Amino acid sequence: MRLRNKPWAKPLIAANPDLIVTDPAALKGTWQSRFSRSAPLYLEIGMGKGNFIIEMAKQHPENNYLGMEVQTTVAAIVLKKLLAQSAPLPNLQLIVGDGRLLTEFFAENEITGIYLNFSDPWPKKKQAKRRLTYHTFLQQYRQVLVKNGQIEFKTDNQGLFEFSLQSMNNFGMYFVGVWLNLHQSEENENNVLTEYEAKFSQKGQPIYKVTARFNCSTEH
Amino acid sequence: MRLRNKPWAKPLIAANPDLIVTDPAALKGTWQSRFSRSAPLYLEIGMGKGNFIIEMAKQHPENNYLGMEVQTTVAAIVLKKLLAQSAPLPNLQLIVGDGRLLTEFFAENEITGIYLNFSDPWPKKKQAKRRLTYHTFLQQYRQVLVKNGQIEFKTDNQGLFEFSLQSMNNFGMYFVGVWLNLHQSEENENNVLTEYEAKFSQKGQPIYKVTARFNCSTEH
Repeated sequence: MRLRNKPWAKPLIAANPDLIVTDPAALKGTWQSRFSRSAPLYLEIGMGKGNFIIEMAKQHPENNYLGMEVQTTVAAIVLKKLLAQSAPLPNLQLIVGDGRLLTEFFAENEITGIYLNFSDPWPKKKQAKRRLTYHTFLQQYRQVLVKNGQIEFKTDNQGLFEFSLQSMNNFGMYFVGVWLNLHQSEENENNVLTEYEAKFSQKGQPIYKVTARFNCSTEH
Repeated sequence: MRLRNKPWAKPLIAANPDLIVTDPAALKGTWQSRFSRSAPLYLEIGMGKGNFIIEMAKQHPENNYLGMEVQTTVAAIVLKKLLAQSAPLPNLQLIVGDGRLLTEFFAENEITGIYLNFSDPWPKKKQAKRRLTYHTFLQQYRQVLVKNGQIEFKTDNQGLFEFSLQSMNNFGMYFVGVWLNLHQSEENENNVLTEYEAKFSQKGQPIYKVTARFNCSTEH
């Protein structure tokens, strides 16, 4: 999502250094220090308005969560939402940061799982490099994820999903699950909606999902 | 597809031993002898009413084709259609045979490509073993295919496609292409329709397709 800059965004972020990180490279290898206790660490890259990561943090107090977003104004909107919660979420931290720099922000094996929700499809062929499932991104995910760490990818965009299945497969990733109409499957019971997903699913468009790991596939 | 037995089926097959093979195991390793000249050999497993394999043979005289079908009556219907062609097709042979016995029918490296079109979805979990993309089938395909030999799989069945993507990926197959709505893609230009496909596509249902190889994926 893209938003016009809001004048209140930067001051709000500056006023809440305990909830949002603006220099993620400084925390490389020490992210657990940002939480009240150490726990498996899950990262959403491009958190949009934050519904997904806030809800995940609420539903899974046993895990730690990071919501990352490159645009300051978007991150500030999530921060506002976080501050408006009835109870604090000690297992959620926000980051203003660029997904392309992931290996500068996180040490090897620091992340347990990565969420990519409704990422920008960059539909033109020459934009393929910017898609969050392009092989250069997968390479970074593999580096920061624990062994057997999982990526969960959801989208309503057919072209992006076709590309992502092929890209992840060609990279040697192992598919744990594939859904071509998530909201009509059993898997949907535990599905946490993003705001975008809620809107598009209401229109009857299928939501695609794949979960995958980096360990080598087992041949029979 | 399932059909009631027709009394004319067996006599018609018996009368055309130059077009249809009923003892495929006897030809293991020598299939090229059935054609007027040696050429890359493509096999369709479960040819339905035969539209696809007949049309492929017409469009690609540079290749040899085999249409296989386990049900005698269905195979006889295709044979009838083949006999009704205005010109003979020296590059097409039919087989009455069971896909589960593929490695008894073909030697290693004998097949250049395999087509699986609108295979029976066997939707119940306990029927998974019968799906033509179950790992025991993939194992057989790998054995009879040349190195870099390709599988082309088309279906309108969402559950079967989800299963197949995962099964082929988990087996270590390399995706060459993935289409989630084949008839609305550029790929459709050269797409040869099966009779089933024509019917379902007219109803606006998406046709799924994946092409894949057995060689190991190249990691970046």
